[in-house]
Amino acid sequence: MGKTLIFGHKNPDTDTICSSLAYADLKKKLGADVEAVKLGDVNKETQFALDYFKFEAPEYLPTLEPGTEVILVDHNEFQQSSEGIEAARILEVIDHHRIANFETKEPVYFRAEPVGCTATIIKKMYKENQVDLPENIAGLLLSAIISDSLLLKSPTCTDEDVEAAHDLARIAGVNLEEYGLEMLKAGADLSDKSASELISMDAKEFSMHGAKVEVAQVNTVDVEGTYAIKAELEAAINKVIEEKGLDLFLFVVTDILNNDSDALALGKSADKVEKAFHTNLIENRAFLKGVVSRKKQIVTNLTDAFAE
Amino acid sequence: MGKTLIFGHKNPDTDTICSSLAYADLKKKLGADVEAVKLGDVNKETQFALDYFKFEAPEYLPTLEPGTEVILVDHNEFQQSSEGIEAARILEVIDHHRIANFETKEPVYFRAEPVGCTATIIKKMYKENQVDLPENIAGLLLSAIISDSLLLKSPTCTDEDVEAAHDLARIAGVNLEEYGLEMLKAGADLSDKSASELISMDAKEFSMHGAKVEVAQVNTVDVEGTYAIKAELEAAINKVIEEKGLDLFLFVVTDILNNDSDALALGKSADKVEKAFHTNLIENRAFLKGVVSRKKQIVTNLTDAFAE
Repeated sequence: MGKTLIFGHKNPDTDTICSSLAYADLKKKLGADVEAVKLGDVNKETQFALDYFKFEAPEYLPTLEPGTEVILVDHNEFQQSSEGIEAARILEVIDHHRIANFETKEPVYFRAEPVGCTATIIKKMYKENQVDLPENIAGLLLSAIISDSLLLKSPTCTDEDVEAAHDLARIAGVNLEEYGLEMLKAGADLSDKSASELISMDAKEFSMHGAKVEVAQVNTVDVEGTYAIKAELEAAINKVIEEKGLDLFLFVVTDILNNDSDALALGKSADKVEKAFHTNLIENRAFLKGVVSRKKQIVTNLTDAFAE
Repeated sequence: MGKTLIFGHKNPDTDTICSSLAYADLKKKLGADVEAVKLGDVNKETQFALDYFKFEAPEYLPTLEPGTEVILVDHNEFQQSSEGIEAARILEVIDHHRIANFETKEPVYFRAEPVGCTATIIKKMYKENQVDLPENIAGLLLSAIISDSLLLKSPTCTDEDVEAAHDLARIAGVNLEEYGLEMLKAGADLSDKSASELISMDAKEFSMHGAKVEVAQVNTVDVEGTYAIKAELEAAINKVIEEKGLDLFLFVVTDILNNDSDALALGKSADKVEKAFHTNLIENRAFLKGVVSRKKQIVTNLTDAFAE
């Protein structure tokens, strides 16, 4: 048996990468033979955090051999995981998402908590296991919380996340607000992205009462700048809809300064977006006031709309 | 919103009932408005434990209203849960089984650990939350571990379960071996059970690579006495197979003194039992040397046999 692989979801974000690296550090200190890997390229925001705290990104995992022992962080739904996950031996899951399309043959250590970020759970696990949290690992965990909570402003952010973030900033020796805004802005620079990159860099697929729905999200400080290539975005989205047989593709452009979103909806079930958010699509776009969380505001409302 | 209901699986066993009661005690002490309920009659073994430690069985839950807030213990697969579980609001799951056929819309507190008994996890949660474990609750948790581990002899029993059982026996003020054997024997008295009671009192349904499989188990000190009504058992099993459209019904009679089992297999996939255990069915029966655990020895081997 080789090393146990620790990884987060496809289209990795900062929580997925940083939680994989941090949990690998903790498991190694507890005597396990583990290695963090990634399922795709790291984004600019994550790269900023890795550079700041002097980490290398994990190795890319191209294929998962059957029977490999794995630990999943920051996801559990198989369609968001590595190809071949069904034939892997899942030892643990550490997550903060809804649970769906997950199955094991044997009992497993599964820890999901309704907090804003996987990193918040991993910080707690250092304490529970009485392992000192290194400064640079604290920096990674802090970056993950800032990312998932949009600097503690998302409705997914719990008191526990806020408390953890302040603790971690102190341990890492950074100013939470200053470091956080700098990191988010690094990730919000979309100027060099093509339409197909924009719609896939943080895309997740969901099954909603039988419908196939993909929700992609980008953070920006310039919403209209992102829509400058609206025609290309629509063409790229329609191509994905056709290839995957999707009922709906929702592309969510989130304004990290004002904490609102402006979404582009395509597919034969685009009317579900109108129903879910009590709004009208104008040229396929809808302004979603106060909406920043895919998990707590978008997926939940859309799932309800598909249930009707 | 009414109270949050805490319950274990259908056909409740000692872990399901005792863990529901204990977790309700802990949650109440942490300020939650909860109530333990049961999904079916308690068996004689569980009744012995309840009487010994002076508890009433939880109330029976006939139907689950949509939107009710619930906490599941000792199970997660929806087909083993209350009717209507899909429309309930699941807040937490505390379990030690494989995870399958479980889905939520929102993030949830899900804690599954690969230990032998839910009660072992709940004992730990008292400690984590710095709540004193009362003597009589310790007795319930001990009873659950003895039941699930057949007095610490099942292969599902981990070091953590053994340690927890010894701690709990000390707190409850009972001799582990003496109390344990007395409790198991109380449950192993099957003399007043009809064939249809025997095959349903601890039956669970599983989906194995598309096949519908039900595995029922009884504990006894008199295997041949149980098979005295073999013809009635077969008739009752064939009726269930027809009603539920099962591919296989496996009735496992476990000898708690010698830690072996003798199983009765019916259904069009009965040959999978021969494959799973490298044995031959003789008049539908097979002796399964050293097999006592449905979870770790029966379901795993059968699932593999159905995969081929």
